[in-house]
Amino acid sequence: MASEQTKAVLSTPGEREILTERVFDAPRDRVWAAYTDRELIPRWWGLRGSETRIDQLELRPGGAWRFVQRNSDGSEAAFRGIYREVSPIERLAYTFEYEGQPGHVLIDTVEFEDLGEQTKLLVHSLFHTTEERDWMIEAGMERGLNEGYEQLDELLEELAG
Amino acid sequence: MASEQTKAVLSTPGEREILTERVFDAPRDRVWAAYTDRELIPRWWGLRGSETRIDQLELRPGGAWRFVQRNSDGSEAAFRGIYREVSPIERLAYTFEYEGQPGHVLIDTVEFEDLGEQTKLLVHSLFHTTEERDWMIEAGMERGLNEGYEQLDELLEELAG
Repeated sequence: MASEQTKAVLSTPGEREILTERVFDAPRDRVWAAYTDRELIPRWWGLRGSETRIDQLELRPGGAWRFVQRNSDGSEAAFRGIYREVSPIERLAYTFEYEGQPGHVLIDTVEFEDLGEQTKLLVHSLFHTTEERDWMIEAGMERGLNEGYEQLDELLEELAG
Repeated sequence: MASEQTKAVLSTPGEREILTERVFDAPRDRVWAAYTDRELIPRWWGLRGSETRIDQLELRPGGAWRFVQRNSDGSEAAFRGIYREVSPIERLAYTFEYEGQPGHVLIDTVEFEDLGEQTKLLVHSLFHTTEERDWMIEAGMERGLNEGYEQLDELLEELAG
């Protein structure tokens, strides 16, 4: 179980933004790999008890990604977007669209900050409108993020071992 | 030839917005039809000398649209998005993405203002960033818009006849 201090810190620096910060006990190249590798993403991405299938992963500017999460009750939720920036091992930016809410597109910019043996992950989410930002928060973004990040902790520990 | 006063008026009311206004000599239901009908759109949409093919047109919230413009030199440019709001004959909102710039998504909200025998069309474009807004202006948005609107004038006149 994750202790309180390993929870991601969410803030809303602007009226249509969300910033999340989380430190991981692994060097930057390993966090980048977990975040971008087709084999590693399904091992941590999404809610606990769900399975993630990588449908598309074209890791280059203009390339598409699409992940399908199969929940424990058998239902599926799909997410998609386009990579806008791919700067290994420093920064990744992509659009993010939940297919259950088509036409609501945000931009995530992920910074991998080098802390030596640790890495700080900063995710800046930029929405078109405040309503879309608030909808994402109310839809349970924090829970989903933290469950994914706890699984990422476990994966990073395994990769180190 | 269109006279000066029939050009669309562009303004930038916010740092990531474009507003265009244009009056058409046709009642609102006819302008709405020209804007949303699969048979009518290709008759005015896009640059002069180009041909527009409707690949998808699912006119409902969450439905997809995709138009392919074939230019006089044989090159093609495709545009796509998702309808967010469909309120006949008053308002239409959709995302807009040029496939040559994937991952750059704006929201257009089109208001059809009833002026009796005329209709004012207000198009509000909302971008994620100022850079994307400025790119659209520099890419020749105003020329494309005005050439399309002049062809729309001609179509509306024909439909009235």
